[in-house]
Amino acid sequence: MHQVNVGEDMREHNRRIAAENREMLRSRGIASLNIMSAPGAGKTSLLVRTLPRLRDRCRVAVVEGDLQTSRDADRVAETGVEVHQITTGEVCHLDAAMFHSALHRIDLDELDLLLVENVGNLVCPAEFDLGVDRRVMLLSVTEGDDKPRKYPLMFMQSSLLLLNKIDLLPHVDFDVERASREAREINPDIEIMGLSCRTGEGLDAWLAWLDRFIESSGGA
Amino acid sequence: MHQVNVGEDMREHNRRIAAENREMLRSRGIASLNIMSAPGAGKTSLLVRTLPRLRDRCRVAVVEGDLQTSRDADRVAETGVEVHQITTGEVCHLDAAMFHSALHRIDLDELDLLLVENVGNLVCPAEFDLGVDRRVMLLSVTEGDDKPRKYPLMFMQSSLLLLNKIDLLPHVDFDVERASREAREINPDIEIMGLSCRTGEGLDAWLAWLDRFIESSGGA
Repeated sequence: MHQVNVGEDMREHNRRIAAENREMLRSRGIASLNIMSAPGAGKTSLLVRTLPRLRDRCRVAVVEGDLQTSRDADRVAETGVEVHQITTGEVCHLDAAMFHSALHRIDLDELDLLLVENVGNLVCPAEFDLGVDRRVMLLSVTEGDDKPRKYPLMFMQSSLLLLNKIDLLPHVDFDVERASREAREINPDIEIMGLSCRTGEGLDAWLAWLDRFIESSGGA
Repeated sequence: MHQVNVGEDMREHNRRIAAENREMLRSRGIASLNIMSAPGAGKTSLLVRTLPRLRDRCRVAVVEGDLQTSRDADRVAETGVEVHQITTGEVCHLDAAMFHSALHRIDLDELDLLLVENVGNLVCPAEFDLGVDRRVMLLSVTEGDDKPRKYPLMFMQSSLLLLNKIDLLPHVDFDVERASREAREINPDIEIMGLSCRTGEGLDAWLAWLDRFIESSGGA
């Protein structure tokens, strides 16, 4: 039972640091989002599309989690928004301690919104609370409409499910109704929006969601 | 340094059981493949397309790893091939011990080829040797051509990279040249094939690869 105890210790340790992170952000009225998905579902493309339109609305920064390379961080930095990279090496998710280190590098007094792009992985990132306000997940329609029941934890935790790459719907077998129904069976409160980072369809609704979220957190 | 030691113990434990599995399979001349990819890249579709054509060539069985649900196993079972499911619950990968339990449920004396569908995850499955002969990975062209450098371990370990969903190439920004070049920079020996489980394009080449692999393992 040795391993189980260590796992429990690690989880308790993560919970404690996540609580600290939450306090650091909430005490300053900073709205924060943990953006999660499988690899290649479009997290970075979503940020690249979103940030230029957010910059006029509020003060925003991004934390980028990646196993290797600064490719995503570089793409995000091109928008002119402040980016802080966490290179996880072999670790397949961000945890609260990694995020805590990043928070210490950011001037939190100059911030309304903090967006975290987690490592591309539909499983493990959902197991580690970072201490942010809400979780948002992307599911690309190319991944299949059977994913909610197969990977329930992330759907259970997310406030918003973004069905990305809807421009490809005519070319794939993805039943939006089925995916939405299953996601709501797992999490009745989840909001669901379709969008395409490629064509820009649906981005206005996502921006409006972000505006409401920032307001409700007391920022901007 | 407590956690590090436990990690090492787990890895050593996995290595030992993987070696046992390898011996169980090799001593019977069974060819075995660990099929890995991100969620939704098409592992199950590949099996569903492949198995009906394999059944006439050799005696084949499948081990299906999934976090939750028997959906993939059910789809594979419809081909009439013997399927053994491993439900991992919260665990984001198969390990050698899970695979070992499955091996005990299979009549290995009646087998030429064993195909393992790992949990959909581009990270952790690559960290756990199961004791099979070779690893094959799928990368859907909808996931982006930047994946090899971002998730190098799986590319490093795989003998064959299947670029799936090539029917969608006209609709996505995926540079086959770039992805192939980067995969070969990480693993100069990796073979690369494009295919579409939807249209069937490229399946003949994959079947021919499987034939050569089974022959080289002394099966069929």
